[in-house]
Amino acid sequence: MTNLSIVTERLLGRLRTLGEVGRDDDGRLVRLAASDSEKLGRDQFVAWIREAGLEVEIDRIGNIFGIWRPEAVSESAPLMLGSHIDTVINAGIYDGCYGVISGLEVIATLKEAGFTPVRPIVVAAFTNEEGVRYAPDMMGSLVYAGGLSTEEALASIGTDGSVLGQELARIGYAGKNEPGFLRPHAYIELHIEQGPVLEREGFPLGAVENLQGISWQKVTIDGDANHAGTTPISMRRDAGYAAARVITFLRDRAKASNTPTVATVGCIEFEPNAINVIPSRATFTVDLRDPNEDRLKQEEAELTAFLERLSQEERVAIRVERMARFEPVNFDEGIVKAIETAAAARGLAHRRMTSGSGHDAQMMARLAPSAMIFVPSRDGISHNPKEFTTDQDLIAGANILLDVVREMTKD
Amino acid sequence: MTNLSIVTERLLGRLRTLGEVGRDDDGRLVRLAASDSEKLGRDQFVAWIREAGLEVEIDRIGNIFGIWRPEAVSESAPLMLGSHIDTVINAGIYDGCYGVISGLEVIATLKEAGFTPVRPIVVAAFTNEEGVRYAPDMMGSLVYAGGLSTEEALASIGTDGSVLGQELARIGYAGKNEPGFLRPHAYIELHIEQGPVLEREGFPLGAVENLQGISWQKVTIDGDANHAGTTPISMRRDAGYAAARVITFLRDRAKASNTPTVATVGCIEFEPNAINVIPSRATFTVDLRDPNEDRLKQEEAELTAFLERLSQEERVAIRVERMARFEPVNFDEGIVKAIETAAAARGLAHRRMTSGSGHDAQMMARLAPSAMIFVPSRDGISHNPKEFTTDQDLIAGANILLDVVREMTKD
Repeated sequence: MTNLSIVTERLLGRLRTLGEVGRDDDGRLVRLAASDSEKLGRDQFVAWIREAGLEVEIDRIGNIFGIWRPEAVSESAPLMLGSHIDTVINAGIYDGCYGVISGLEVIATLKEAGFTPVRPIVVAAFTNEEGVRYAPDMMGSLVYAGGLSTEEALASIGTDGSVLGQELARIGYAGKNEPGFLRPHAYIELHIEQGPVLEREGFPLGAVENLQGISWQKVTIDGDANHAGTTPISMRRDAGYAAARVITFLRDRAKASNTPTVATVGCIEFEPNAINVIPSRATFTVDLRDPNEDRLKQEEAELTAFLERLSQEERVAIRVERMARFEPVNFDEGIVKAIETAAAARGLAHRRMTSGSGHDAQMMARLAPSAMIFVPSRDGISHNPKEFTTDQDLIAGANILLDVVREMTKD
Repeated sequence: MTNLSIVTERLLGRLRTLGEVGRDDDGRLVRLAASDSEKLGRDQFVAWIREAGLEVEIDRIGNIFGIWRPEAVSESAPLMLGSHIDTVINAGIYDGCYGVISGLEVIATLKEAGFTPVRPIVVAAFTNEEGVRYAPDMMGSLVYAGGLSTEEALASIGTDGSVLGQELARIGYAGKNEPGFLRPHAYIELHIEQGPVLEREGFPLGAVENLQGISWQKVTIDGDANHAGTTPISMRRDAGYAAARVITFLRDRAKASNTPTVATVGCIEFEPNAINVIPSRATFTVDLRDPNEDRLKQEEAELTAFLERLSQEERVAIRVERMARFEPVNFDEGIVKAIETAAAARGLAHRRMTSGSGHDAQMMARLAPSAMIFVPSRDGISHNPKEFTTDQDLIAGANILLDVVREMTKD
């Protein structure tokens, strides 16, 4: 059983089949969590689980589990693979689905090959990872890991006014199992990178060793709205100029450092937003990320200090509101090494890397040793119909997952 | 007749009376050009013209003229005083009205004192100076000076879908006179500064020697919308960062120079404007002003050159659209000196200055030697109910206008 590989046609075929489930009248892929279209995706996934001869379990938050539980090892903690099958609006077909379908493919391949694992192997599809319909994102895995109560999550009101618990019941995915009912021995998530690093550096595979911490802040700067023609530069309290200073400070600082810190100002608004009026107010967001918590705290502190100096220099009032804060997650070194070993054995160029976006794995890491495997995203594009990974990369990634799972469950 | 002064109670009383005409249900002063509420303001002004025993004439674009035409000098070109009585939404009571009421007050004072001018003296209220309802602003004086055809102006469609010509007819102010029918010997406009300079420097009076040229441009920067977490700084094409670089460039350049150049970015928009997405597009306006045309051209050229460098450095595409461009206007040195002489004679501290905003005087300067007199605006505020000038400053400004008019029309 040395040369085991997944069944490429089944993997790719299912990915494309699932990618056609939930298209709207305009042909856009839209499977928002617990919606009618997502129910169709869930039904398809459950059908494939049954086809593989696995147990199907649903928990109260709607997470779906396909469980391969050989009798001899049924009492052991399972190795869990997984991701999500809900999508954003007008999504690509790979985000989440690739990990779920590959997990099932790995189990099916091992099972069909007569492999005898030393523990159960489970594939999971977590509810509402995207967070488009209900907040917060990564909700299913967060609840599963005990980070949010099931009741609170089920009471979430959607952007369309719906209640998640009612919607899950309506589509038939309000399960009986208490979230966390299967405590995994370890968790592995295979995912597209959703960033440009692997492609640009020419690596088909990434062993994800950590996940960036995220700091989201909203900054409001208040100055004076005065006439753009009659107010000399020296007399201005220009909130827009002060905002521009923050944007260049963040970028220039990130660029000058040799750390992986990234800083982004994605949203901005001026008031009164008139061509001939100096902005009295500028409101903007700051997205700071770093895989190291100390460094992330340092960046936050540097921003705070800069805002204080700026407030003095420009005679503006600055208010900061924290919107979200997640500490970085360090994945399990043993699993990361196993991924590297498997890639090397298949002669696959690979690099260690950081996940810049959030994934269910960051929640599951609270419960068990976890890690992720990344494959390249063309042009780094995701959450978009242009999202694309080559078949070759998809197959290679699934085979690495297969090898790692086999290694971690062999006798 | 050496110690002639205007009748302060009449001047201030009329300013306040007119300031109550056209209040809406919320108490806001709103006299948009050719509206029902502005008709009430026009009717009040015409009543005061008749009360002073002057001729009333209206031209086809709705400009109102109060003409003191002593028989002996009826064929001479008149000295014209004026401004406007239309307002912005939620206006103050001084902008425009102060110049119109003072002009009438000066004529009435001279007439009542038995003064015999060597030429007619006219007070004008120009249509649609504010440009809130119909574009462009300063329309009545622009048409009067021949810069826009009467037909084109009358066909203007308002923000409410109305047609200016129809509205003027409806409110009874579509006159028969051809705009330009009175070709002035000279034009003088008394106005509140609408800026902070006089107040902050402690001068009650400004002799306005020129009016800034204005360059309005709209800049659109296109980069790439990528994930804020997964895209390393070095791989970004961040349109928002590039926009911030332009804002700081303009401000830092204006601040470092010892010229009166002012640069303002008043409007900005990012796309997609999401907290975790690098802006793919930034659109913003640039308002550049300078009283010297060569310097204004130089500033425009420096911006163009900077945008070219920026486009290379940040690998973004930059598109510039010209929105408006007015050359600076130099007022008449003789009238400016007469204003200074009159101020000195009354012991009034004064300075020469530049008008940072547009006024009817800039259009009338095309027809005749022109100048303006400014009085202080508290905190530089205008176009706002908080607009305020002290009675003392209002009276002083009107008396300087009186002295200058007397000097320019005496035997």
